[in-house]
Amino acid sequence: MKAVQVVGYHTKPQLTEVPEPRLEGPLDVIVRIGAAGVCRTDLHILEGQWAAKSKVELPYTIGHENAGWVHAIGDAVTNINVGDKVILHPLITCGLCRACRFGDDVHCEKSKFPGIDTDGGYAEYLRTTARSVVKIDDDLEPADVAALADAGLTAYHAAAKVARATRPGDTCVVIGAGGLGHIGIQVLKAISGVTVVVVDRNPAALRLAGAIGADETIVADGTEVQRVLGLTGGHGAEAVLDFVGEGGATKQGIAMLRRAGNYFVVGYGENIDVPTLDIISAEINFIGNLVGSYNDLHDLMTLAAQGKVTLHTSTYPLEEFQRALDDLEAGRVRGRAILIP
Amino acid sequence: MKAVQVVGYHTKPQLTEVPEPRLEGPLDVIVRIGAAGVCRTDLHILEGQWAAKSKVELPYTIGHENAGWVHAIGDAVTNINVGDKVILHPLITCGLCRACRFGDDVHCEKSKFPGIDTDGGYAEYLRTTARSVVKIDDDLEPADVAALADAGLTAYHAAAKVARATRPGDTCVVIGAGGLGHIGIQVLKAISGVTVVVVDRNPAALRLAGAIGADETIVADGTEVQRVLGLTGGHGAEAVLDFVGEGGATKQGIAMLRRAGNYFVVGYGENIDVPTLDIISAEINFIGNLVGSYNDLHDLMTLAAQGKVTLHTSTYPLEEFQRALDDLEAGRVRGRAILIP
Amino acid sequence: MKAVQVVGYHTKPQLTEVPEPRLEGPLDVIVRIGAAGVCRTDLHILEGQWAAKSKVELPYTIGHENAGWVHAIGDAVTNINVGDKVILHPLITCGLCRACRFGDDVHCEKSKFPGIDTDGGYAEYLRTTARSVVKIDDDLEPADVAALADAGLTAYHAAAKVARATRPGDTCVVIGAGGLGHIGIQVLKAISGVTVVVVDRNPAALRLAGAIGADETIVADGTEVQRVLGLTGGHGAEAVLDFVGEGGATKQGIAMLRRAGNYFVVGYGENIDVPTLDIISAEINFIGNLVGSYNDLHDLMTLAAQGKVTLHTSTYPLEEFQRALDDLEAGRVRGRAILIP
Amino acid sequence: MKAVQVVGYHTKPQLTEVPEPRLEGPLDVIVRIGAAGVCRTDLHILEGQWAAKSKVELPYTIGHENAGWVHAIGDAVTNINVGDKVILHPLITCGLCRACRFGDDVHCEKSKFPGIDTDGGYAEYLRTTARSVVKIDDDLEPADVAALADAGLTAYHAAAKVARATRPGDTCVVIGAGGLGHIGIQVLKAISGVTVVVVDRNPAALRLAGAIGADETIVADGTEVQRVLGLTGGHGAEAVLDFVGEGGATKQGIAMLRRAGNYFVVGYGENIDVPTLDIISAEINFIGNLVGSYNDLHDLMTLAAQGKVTLHTSTYPLEEFQRALDDLEAGRVRGRAILIP
Repeated sequence: MKAVQVVGYHTKPQLTEVPEPRLEGPLDVIVRIGAAGVCRTDLHILEGQWAAKSKVELPYTIGHENAGWVHAIGDAVTNINVGDKVILHPLITCGLCRACRFGDDVHCEKSKFPGIDTDGGYAEYLRTTARSVVKIDDDLEPADVAALADAGLTAYHAAAKVARATRPGDTCVVIGAGGLGHIGIQVLKAISGVTVVVVDRNPAALRLAGAIGADETIVADGTEVQRVLGLTGGHGAEAVLDFVGEGGATKQGIAMLRRAGNYFVVGYGENIDVPTLDIISAEINFIGNLVGSYNDLHDLMTLAAQGKVTLHTSTYPLEEFQRALDDLEAGRVRGRAILIP
Repeated sequence: MKAVQVVGYHTKPQLTEVPEPRLEGPLDVIVRIGAAGVCRTDLHILEGQWAAKSKVELPYTIGHENAGWVHAIGDAVTNINVGDKVILHPLITCGLCRACRFGDDVHCEKSKFPGIDTDGGYAEYLRTTARSVVKIDDDLEPADVAALADAGLTAYHAAAKVARATRPGDTCVVIGAGGLGHIGIQVLKAISGVTVVVVDRNPAALRLAGAIGADETIVADGTEVQRVLGLTGGHGAEAVLDFVGEGGATKQGIAMLRRAGNYFVVGYGENIDVPTLDIISAEINFIGNLVGSYNDLHDLMTLAAQGKVTLHTSTYPLEEFQRALDDLEAGRVRGRAILIP
Repeated sequence: MKAVQVVGYHTKPQLTEVPEPRLEGPLDVIVRIGAAGVCRTDLHILEGQWAAKSKVELPYTIGHENAGWVHAIGDAVTNINVGDKVILHPLITCGLCRACRFGDDVHCEKSKFPGIDTDGGYAEYLRTTARSVVKIDDDLEPADVAALADAGLTAYHAAAKVARATRPGDTCVVIGAGGLGHIGIQVLKAISGVTVVVVDRNPAALRLAGAIGADETIVADGTEVQRVLGLTGGHGAEAVLDFVGEGGATKQGIAMLRRAGNYFVVGYGENIDVPTLDIISAEINFIGNLVGSYNDLHDLMTLAAQGKVTLHTSTYPLEEFQRALDDLEAGRVRGRAILIP
Repeated sequence: MKAVQVVGYHTKPQLTEVPEPRLEGPLDVIVRIGAAGVCRTDLHILEGQWAAKSKVELPYTIGHENAGWVHAIGDAVTNINVGDKVILHPLITCGLCRACRFGDDVHCEKSKFPGIDTDGGYAEYLRTTARSVVKIDDDLEPADVAALADAGLTAYHAAAKVARATRPGDTCVVIGAGGLGHIGIQVLKAISGVTVVVVDRNPAALRLAGAIGADETIVADGTEVQRVLGLTGGHGAEAVLDFVGEGGATKQGIAMLRRAGNYFVVGYGENIDVPTLDIISAEINFIGNLVGSYNDLHDLMTLAAQGKVTLHTSTYPLEEFQRALDDLEAGRVRGRAILIP
């Protein structure tokens, strides 16, 4: 089959012919890829930033945001049938460790991550397991949802935590109206009663944020802390959902937080660097956020089927993967780039 | 009446004669002080460290850990009677702001803090309100519990959050086996099923920790992170309850934390300084902790009445306040120093 | 001033001249009534159904859903000013008992209930306290929101519990699309991601339910259980929110519930009568719901100001109270009847 | 191997020779039985009470509370090794349905129940899966813990819900100081700060309850409601944990409940039959309880290893199963009867 493989770092990936994956274990599932999201992480992989952490052996197939149709299933698979239209949870998890037994698959002690440390979805077929496939609604297509598999699921997971930690009418500041931010905004509006205030440097991104439901938008021009305080009676926001995490965002974000507020860390780059005295005297919390669980992905697909969460996408044939990567790097992609094998 | 007042910073407080406080508002309560805790914060006040923050006008009466008997009550007081034996919540709160209406009195928008920004309890009488008095059991005496009013209540509040965030059999590392730590350990044992691992530099403090219920004690000699990992199958602890917060404690404490674990900040001094990447990839949380609420103090008094939380105390007549302060500064106090008017 | 008073049971109330209420306590607030909701409970009061329970002495002024403007405030009132536009929490609470200190004002040990056991709002002025007044947005008028003070607050409170007990994409069956049901549906859509399925005998009520956001509507014609099971893959709904509670509604409702589901009891009349074996083998819960707290009312007013919760109302001058009561009894009121003094 | 099989209803089970179970699926685990609890449910099975519900084909091997050593494991088993000492979760669950993916294994859509609907543990060997085996501490023996596998796990699960729904110092009434009650009392004391009040008709059972930590014991002689009210300042208890559920226990239990309290249903027999008006006006909840999850069993084994939960047992050789059943029926067993193959 055709697959796009990493053949070296700081070099272009190559479209090549590789053997189709086969069922190896009783819970294995082979998925015919219908769409694969092209993510900034893919660029980082090609630059070698993940090499030490993933320890993956080259060459291998990239692509970690995948959706398609079930092609073959192992003997012990009971939750899915050949032909089902599915999205793939990004991790392959063991199902037996303590974390898996709580439904916290993300903290599985033995997980694999297709596209990162094993063969991914820039290809015609991919092997995963029954624990990672979520059926999607008849009205959704793989290309519509593939990019929700990882980036979208992370935004969903964090927004769902915000919803549980706030009350209707509370304010949530969303820092960063990019890819994750747009999902986060839609999810907050769909599942909670918080007032959503979006902060970004880019006025165009803020206009889109407003169009998908943001209650207030603020250009990050140095006045953003004052403006948030102004919108909240001087108290600050009950929640800050930070999709940036670099360039000074956290210092600004913390200054926007109300006493007893929660700061949700999603974006990364800089340090959270705050006096313990400030943490205790305002009694604020910092909440880490990784990608969501299998059931989170199921719930996100329900919202997608109901039209509550949508993505702008630009599709490319698999063969034009390099153009997609180049467009992403150059900032020429409207919405998310999707490869179609 | 007699009162010990701050008359200047970097100078000794003075025992002087001042007018007895009188009822001014309908919810006011005058308490005859039975015992006042002598706290390290009192030393800091005398050094002027709180002057800018509290904006208190000198002279005023110090003492923020108070218990005694109700001496007089305002017209609108319905929850307490003259003669009742009581402990005082450290804050005087408004009862009308949003935080008060949730029971989060600690985040009251208009609170006063006797002993810090208004007259406190190194005196024969103190004025507070009906919102701050908690009746105590017949079998408890003011001198037994006064030191629970602030330090103890803070430890209780944080330990109760640990209990809610963990499951029986989880591990909680307690960093710091001093005054708050000893309360925290007793509370964790009384209200949760966590395994309590205590870390401190002082072997004597650890022996006492063991005597009051710590399951494991570890001398902080540079091997403490490895030892915690060893006790937890290499995973780390589900909770770290840090009563130190300085001298490198947080860096060590974070290294002891399991994936998806919670770090409870109580002690302060240094910064929490941690890469956002570490926060998200391990999906850990940092939880701030201030003093507990009125109802928390009520619950803590129930545990005290049941003998589940006890304090070692050394009592001094009010007149010997200077000896108590000197003993505290010199590290000569066994347990907590208590002034008896 | 003018007031409509109950002068006897099974007899018509009378418009009469009574003294204006005066400030008596330091937290008292006199409100000039702008609008008073006419509620089915008022009919029950006039029939004497509440006499034994409320022990109110006749004559007294009815009306328990009130909004207006602050006319006078007691000395200790700090959260409100004369002239403020306000809605009134239905209870007057003590602020000092354990329940009040948790923010569970509804379980206050010493509450009064204007319109039920003391003078209410079918009048020009009403006395309440600072603990019961919630400022409303400039764009809202008393007549818009008065009926949210009790009926609406109950629906909000229950719907907010549903939101906390479910996940996005879960199904909540709402039984009863009447006054409370319509508020409940709007609140569920505004603050949660549940799919809302509404069951009622009245097709017209269901049409309105659909117009305000219900995802599915089902006529209660004997097939409703099967239809709910059909919509939920045979599993039943994660939540049932029952605004009826009589006429066999609970038996039907329980049959619609998924394993581990929650049944929210709001409407009343019949018994919950279910084998303990069924409760444990399906591990289902029954959750009681009374009116919401002060902070709940605050949050509901935020949703109202945002246009997320609206009421159809028909206004009557205070003098035409009898026509309003007659219209209500005869089923001629569109939406809620509101008296305007 | 030897196995005790049900050969017909209303007839004695028979010890017979049957083939050893073999690995059939990749996650299968064969356990050499070290101890099997003899439970009242076994008597009910022999009376045919479960025949319609379980649809099991006779003959089959009974015994649903099992512990022992891992004898063989399937190819996909990664969490356990041959020779490990284990206790068995009573259910065999699929791991793929929505409930399993939340860790709510108990609500698995495709579970099997060895000893009830497939071959159980009154035998030398039993087949289960990797999802049902929990390693136990070196210091625990199968005979010590087998009876915790089902009855104990149910009591633990309910007590853990009580702990989460209460605050330290709250009161929990435990109705029924029998097998489950004794576990429940120990668990409440080990993991929560509630005051435990035990009600039973049997003074001897109450004496044992007191010995294992009950704070108060009350003979159920008709005065129990008044006595609970007396112990709780007339308010009633925040929680009632009912292990009886028949003979009028629920009516009494509900009368012991405080406003906003939670009634935990574990024992069964009679109906919960309560006016919806009472449910809403006191805003009380009824919480169903089935057996605990896999992780619950893991946590219970931690408490057992720490000596916080212990069982009185009387052991019998497997061959003397009939004597054990007879003793159980006649009320001659001290603690729990355990068969040792």
